[in-house]
Amino acid sequence: MTTTISPPPQWSRRRAEKARRLDQVRNLADGVVLPSDKMVAVLEALIAPGDRVVLEGNNQKQADFLSRSLAKADPGRLHDLHMIMPSVSRAEHLDLFERGIARKLDFSFAGPQSLRIGQLLEDGQMEVGAIHTYIELYSRLLVDLIPNVALVAGFQADRHGNIYTGPSTEDTPALVEPTAFSDGIVIFQVNEIVDELPRVDIPASWVDFVVVADKPFYIEPLFTRDPRHIKPVHVLMAMMAIRGIYEKHKVQSLNHGIGFNTAAIELILPTYGESLGLKGKICRNWTLNPHPTLIPAIETGWVESVHCFGTELGMENYIAQRPDVFFTGRDGSMRSNRMMCQLAGQYAVDLFIGATLQVDGDGHSSTVTRGRLAGFGGAPNMGHDPRGRRHSTPAWLDMATPGGEGPVTLLERGKKLVVQMVETFQEGGKPTFVERLDAVDVAKKAGMPLAPIMIYGDDVTHLLTEEGIAYLYKARTLEERQAMIAAVAGVTAIGLRHDPKDTARMRREGLIALPEDLGIRRTDASRELLAAKSIAELVEWSGGLYNPPAKFRSW
Amino acid sequence: MTTTISPPPQWSRRRAEKARRLDQVRNLADGVVLPSDKMVAVLEALIAPGDRVVLEGNNQKQADFLSRSLAKADPGRLHDLHMIMPSVSRAEHLDLFERGIARKLDFSFAGPQSLRIGQLLEDGQMEVGAIHTYIELYSRLLVDLIPNVALVAGFQADRHGNIYTGPSTEDTPALVEPTAFSDGIVIFQVNEIVDELPRVDIPASWVDFVVVADKPFYIEPLFTRDPRHIKPVHVLMAMMAIRGIYEKHKVQSLNHGIGFNTAAIELILPTYGESLGLKGKICRNWTLNPHPTLIPAIETGWVESVHCFGTELGMENYIAQRPDVFFTGRDGSMRSNRMMCQLAGQYAVDLFIGATLQVDGDGHSSTVTRGRLAGFGGAPNMGHDPRGRRHSTPAWLDMATPGGEGPVTLLERGKKLVVQMVETFQEGGKPTFVERLDAVDVAKKAGMPLAPIMIYGDDVTHLLTEEGIAYLYKARTLEERQAMIAAVAGVTAIGLRHDPKDTARMRREGLIALPEDLGIRRTDASRELLAAKSIAELVEWSGGLYNPPAKFRSW
Repeated sequence: MTTTISPPPQWSRRRAEKARRLDQVRNLADGVVLPSDKMVAVLEALIAPGDRVVLEGNNQKQADFLSRSLAKADPGRLHDLHMIMPSVSRAEHLDLFERGIARKLDFSFAGPQSLRIGQLLEDGQMEVGAIHTYIELYSRLLVDLIPNVALVAGFQADRHGNIYTGPSTEDTPALVEPTAFSDGIVIFQVNEIVDELPRVDIPASWVDFVVVADKPFYIEPLFTRDPRHIKPVHVLMAMMAIRGIYEKHKVQSLNHGIGFNTAAIELILPTYGESLGLKGKICRNWTLNPHPTLIPAIETGWVESVHCFGTELGMENYIAQRPDVFFTGRDGSMRSNRMMCQLAGQYAVDLFIGATLQVDGDGHSSTVTRGRLAGFGGAPNMGHDPRGRRHSTPAWLDMATPGGEGPVTLLERGKKLVVQMVETFQEGGKPTFVERLDAVDVAKKAGMPLAPIMIYGDDVTHLLTEEGIAYLYKARTLEERQAMIAAVAGVTAIGLRHDPKDTARMRREGLIALPEDLGIRRTDASRELLAAKSIAELVEWSGGLYNPPAKFRSW
Repeated sequence: MTTTISPPPQWSRRRAEKARRLDQVRNLADGVVLPSDKMVAVLEALIAPGDRVVLEGNNQKQADFLSRSLAKADPGRLHDLHMIMPSVSRAEHLDLFERGIARKLDFSFAGPQSLRIGQLLEDGQMEVGAIHTYIELYSRLLVDLIPNVALVAGFQADRHGNIYTGPSTEDTPALVEPTAFSDGIVIFQVNEIVDELPRVDIPASWVDFVVVADKPFYIEPLFTRDPRHIKPVHVLMAMMAIRGIYEKHKVQSLNHGIGFNTAAIELILPTYGESLGLKGKICRNWTLNPHPTLIPAIETGWVESVHCFGTELGMENYIAQRPDVFFTGRDGSMRSNRMMCQLAGQYAVDLFIGATLQVDGDGHSSTVTRGRLAGFGGAPNMGHDPRGRRHSTPAWLDMATPGGEGPVTLLERGKKLVVQMVETFQEGGKPTFVERLDAVDVAKKAGMPLAPIMIYGDDVTHLLTEEGIAYLYKARTLEERQAMIAAVAGVTAIGLRHDPKDTARMRREGLIALPEDLGIRRTDASRELLAAKSIAELVEWSGGLYNPPAKFRSW
């Protein structure tokens, strides 16, 4: 099919450079298997100064043996690396910058490390290319951030270099493909090498080397919420979401973010949702990580399908025993895929619902607070109206016109439902609604061209607080949107802008709804509605299949 | 990692049903290899009435042996199938409906078959679920269109069922993964079975069966444009695009649609672009199929990288010899990937430029014309502003405000450049600018909830005709947008709305630019600027590596 002559040298510089580097470690490697105890030297040989290095670093799964090895490299040999990381999660990710091994960072999310990123920036030890959504970062690997090296993690490898990622496939395929097919070098750390893999997630032809890690890769149970911490106010808001949004718009497919608000929704579907006769009518197809709090809804037949970004620690056996619901391989274990799930969450679901730390009077929101460059993760990708969508569903069509009456002419279009669900005040009395987002000051200080906004106000269709729901998609003007936001912002500075005299009119016009407008008595919002009130009860619902991590075990 | 006990029957219906079907063909199959001469019977056993069947059917590559076999099935045994097809391209795709084997269709694109789809709809022989963009359709396979069976095409298989797709990987991975991991059945037609594959594109653990096709899968050279058909007006418009858009906004990464307009841009980069000193400053990173008309720009060093949706017939050897530019595997041949390229074209490039058949006074456009339900393909996915994008580039920031002065506050955001490039009249004197899109009438007649709009007016940032460029992103109101569109719409009905007295003001305010405003003399726009004036000259530029299909050979 293709000519077998070698490409001319001036058109195959990357391939020649790769061959040169591979030669340097050939005597160290046993076929594709690298020696675990010589990884620092191996990385010094396989990586060159100035390289673009993808390090996984994703939402949960960490190629931590490789990152720890890289951080031990000699900065005289390895310096000025351009790190590309979906998630900056571990201390050594930033040691790379402190030690002068890396210089530039392109990333998506930086949970616990966000404060230190701010500090490194201020000290001039790090240059940030940009902060991305996950899917945006994967995309750039094919365009203007083509990697030289990818350092990634799998569960098992065979001696050919085929990889079984385990249920936590995550974004590994999205990081490997651009590297493998641009003459980059792909190095997998694995927990073990076996003779026969349960299944192949990444074929050996895309993999240059595997190395057995000193200990199994680190994985964080990011999506476990203990129902004991769900408060009556969360239940109230969950009832409002089901009644005033899911039922009202016939929401059939959806994504839930993490948090106690959405966990409460998941846990009252089998009780409150059941009492409304909504089973089979709403919440059938899901794109989300396997939240343990979804177990009761699954067990009671609410959930037709769940496609997952990644897995959740402790859910492996439960998932394997529910293959009609979860995406699993022939071997029985889950196949997750962050890139595909982000796509599905962007283009194929009716609704995204999430929480945030700050909302301003226009409805812009951000999780960036003073000094913390937290990044975006996947929320902006799902928390906006995908204007390249062309298929319609009842919920999507409901958003078609500002008046909220559905499409009037054939030239209109529907909209994705983007719901922000927040309490007006957070723990410690910090107001969620603020005059000015901290993100604006962070951007100024860091010299960013634009503030790191998680979800823009004009992308939000519904704002849900313990006060009520603002149907923002009905706003005809910015002023009306601002008034609707203020109406549900409680006694925050933004909320105090609301003239209580307007409340009746706004309720009448359907711009806002209070719990009583939805037939919800605040006194009914009790923890009694939760199908499970503790982790132990989730385990019980699962028939013992859910195996929560130690830190969630209190019995 | 996972329990080895079998999942309970009530939670593994799909797996049990798959096992039942696989059993029925076990005696016919030699391992994973199915007998080519019994495929009709095999498909009758592996598929059941009412199934969701994915058939590839993508932009270029066709699983045509499988579709021809399926069309021969007994409608008494196989009926009411729900076909899911990225592209409906072949006659037998619709025979399925005429014969009563299939009933419902979800699809993205239907080039040559669009007229017949209209007819089948009218006759009540087909029900259309929805028309999608490619990426939207892949997404739904993970959510509410989870497939039972996927019928797909590869170049070669080995006896384990590993697949080499060849350079035309296309959307095969996007179709296979959702099927393979939901206990669906994946069947590959391949051109041959070999002992050792050049590389593995799809691992055997995702594949149930392979079958050798009666003849190599059909592939269409969709992206070849013969430079002989490029007219001086195309050159004029190409000069305007380079000067008035690419240079003005510093467009570094981009997608080109097919058509003589964009082919002209590609062919004058090495001449006109060079004379402006723009090499290295614009058009460095591309997402597009390997257009033969891009060869001169590649050979003269304009192009850093090209990521491809699929391949183009005849370009195989050229691509294999230019691995620094194209994404190729260790075996030397290209790896394309439609899903990933669509993602890159959506999230990672500065500009999308395309052509269309009809534009209305608001700037809405459509390729649907009377009776032809052509579908969308990928254009709407790339032809809109991805509001989940958070990284900035100079071109993107340039679009930040309606005034076009870049961001004024930190709470603004940039925009993807979406350019419509059309002549005011097409061959045969048909006006491109129309009072009312045919798509509106088609929607009415077919009972669609919304008209099939390819690109919505408010997503278009630039409209380029032979008359001039309208900088639509600067429009502050709908009325202003309409006036700007009319100003470049020539003597069409829309164009005649323009009051020529306004032209000077609009030019002064930078709302529109005529060729002379860009320093372009219409008389300079000659075919002499084309780096290649024929297919033969493209072959020459390629050093004989480009091997055009017979129908493009005229020497």
